[in-house]
Amino acid sequence: MPRHLLSMVLVLAAWAFGPAALAQSDPLPSWNDGAAKARIIAFVQAVTAVGSRDFVPPVDRIAVFDNDGALWSEQPMYFQLAFAIDRVKALAPQHPEWKAKQPFKAALEGDLKALAASGEEGLLELLMATHAGNTSEEFAQAVRDWVRTARHPTLKRPYTELTFQPMRELLNHLRANGFKPYIVSGGGVEFLRVISEELYGVPPEQVIGSSVKTKYELRNGVPVIVRLPTLDFIDDKAGKPVGIHKYIGKRPIAAFGNSDGDLQMLEWTTSAPGARLGVLVHHDDAEREFAYDRQSHIGRLDRALDEAGPRGWTVVSMRRDWKQVYPNR
Amino acid sequence: MPRHLLSMVLVLAAWAFGPAALAQSDPLPSWNDGAAKARIIAFVQAVTAVGSRDFVPPVDRIAVFDNDGALWSEQPMYFQLAFAIDRVKALAPQHPEWKAKQPFKAALEGDLKALAASGEEGLLELLMATHAGNTSEEFAQAVRDWVRTARHPTLKRPYTELTFQPMRELLNHLRANGFKPYIVSGGGVEFLRVISEELYGVPPEQVIGSSVKTKYELRNGVPVIVRLPTLDFIDDKAGKPVGIHKYIGKRPIAAFGNSDGDLQMLEWTTSAPGARLGVLVHHDDAEREFAYDRQSHIGRLDRALDEAGPRGWTVVSMRRDWKQVYPNR
Repeated sequence: MPRHLLSMVLVLAAWAFGPAALAQSDPLPSWNDGAAKARIIAFVQAVTAVGSRDFVPPVDRIAVFDNDGALWSEQPMYFQLAFAIDRVKALAPQHPEWKAKQPFKAALEGDLKALAASGEEGLLELLMATHAGNTSEEFAQAVRDWVRTARHPTLKRPYTELTFQPMRELLNHLRANGFKPYIVSGGGVEFLRVISEELYGVPPEQVIGSSVKTKYELRNGVPVIVRLPTLDFIDDKAGKPVGIHKYIGKRPIAAFGNSDGDLQMLEWTTSAPGARLGVLVHHDDAEREFAYDRQSHIGRLDRALDEAGPRGWTVVSMRRDWKQVYPNR
Repeated sequence: MPRHLLSMVLVLAAWAFGPAALAQSDPLPSWNDGAAKARIIAFVQAVTAVGSRDFVPPVDRIAVFDNDGALWSEQPMYFQLAFAIDRVKALAPQHPEWKAKQPFKAALEGDLKALAASGEEGLLELLMATHAGNTSEEFAQAVRDWVRTARHPTLKRPYTELTFQPMRELLNHLRANGFKPYIVSGGGVEFLRVISEELYGVPPEQVIGSSVKTKYELRNGVPVIVRLPTLDFIDDKAGKPVGIHKYIGKRPIAAFGNSDGDLQMLEWTTSAPGARLGVLVHHDDAEREFAYDRQSHIGRLDRALDEAGPRGWTVVSMRRDWKQVYPNR
């Protein structure tokens, strides 16, 4: 029997013989029972229950997720920044001028504070300088090669193991309920798309991010997409609703973030009529992950934390709400 | 029984009891039997047959369609141009300077030739001038209002009735075989997204098009997306593969167009290894639709027609290959 028919039979069997058992299984086993988990489960029930006044048809069940700090860790630096630093080091012999020029100087000296201070734009400048002129396929290959070998500087694990297990369960729970989850990241879209399917089961076309301009050309008669050294779009802060509008053209009903860079995305998502869900992951777990908020250069959570109460956003305490942070190896 | 379970049961029943009957039903009843139809059917069979050397997993079954001239008519002018002209006329009293300035002058005088000569960029300039400062929701409402009342100048029918029935069947056939069809239009993405679901069953997030820059702001405390009078992206010619890469991040395996503006999209789609399908709709049916190709200002098909043979693209003759052009009323 073809696999998709097999799954249909299994679904039907489950429906016919085991609905009660299914209903009792916990879709979010890595979440401790508490207000955050209850709120998420109740929201999904409300928008999917036929006849509910909050019912939303599947086609409009759009959920948006920040990536860095919301779906995987982001300390002591955005993981894509580690990728860019490794590229700068590899290419430095051909660029003696980088020794005296920021943010390259900071990258070569491993000065994370100076690098963090250069923000998303500094990161993008590094990426543009180290990858302009490459084809998109060459860039994707560099990402794939790096991800296979790189290790987190303090946790000593591959970056791909540093996704948040509770958020992966949440993605699955939403998909199982007809949602279409998008990632809306301040990071580079061409970086994240290479690994989003493996990390989260999110296909490239559901990844929105910052981008450089590209052009189409023939190289020795072969069509390629070439990355240009020009910023096209910064998908951060007020850029996030703009990116959502540009790529999806619909307003989401649920948004998940962790920093002030996600404030406008949560605002845009939750300020329309009907059931809406806004969630902030609060990094308060120095033991299992990292603890930072108002003072952090990376993933600063300050204004959005103040706004959470008045706006009815759910703040997830990593320490109290999550049984487990990373997936089992 | 919930509707989606009901459909599963029906699918299973069809599979168990009636495969032969199903296989014999014609998925493209408005297409005459001939080389074009056979080629399309064979391509879909090849990439979906498990075990076939051309098999493509559903996640990579991306098909891209031009809109104007490929999915609906585009003569005597792009339909979006008719929308823009109506807007120019409505706003003209507030803009006396338009009487002497192109392309506004041509719009006010109904000089289609001058307008057509201004091309996609002229159209976009009209749209920007008549809609900048509007919120995206106001713009969408203007499109909805116009589409309900406007009539084609010579065919005297609502524009929404001027989609091509054979192409709608093709969209359905592809979807039924696990394809994800995208529209990749030189026209404005915010125009087409308002009507793409109704016209073709294609949701907004599967529409790629030309765009203006937008910004996110609060108006009286209410978040809105505002259209700015600045071009962001022209999704035409070499811009089409760029737009596909930007929005989808994957290379399509099938592309459908009708003009030189689609040449690079077909080239990008069909020049990779594996089974690929490139199709050009040739407007050679003056009786039922319009006949034009190498000399037309709108939808010029010249270089792409020359390239079709050497590149193995299928040229669809509207006159010979289609039993019917428009849907029954």
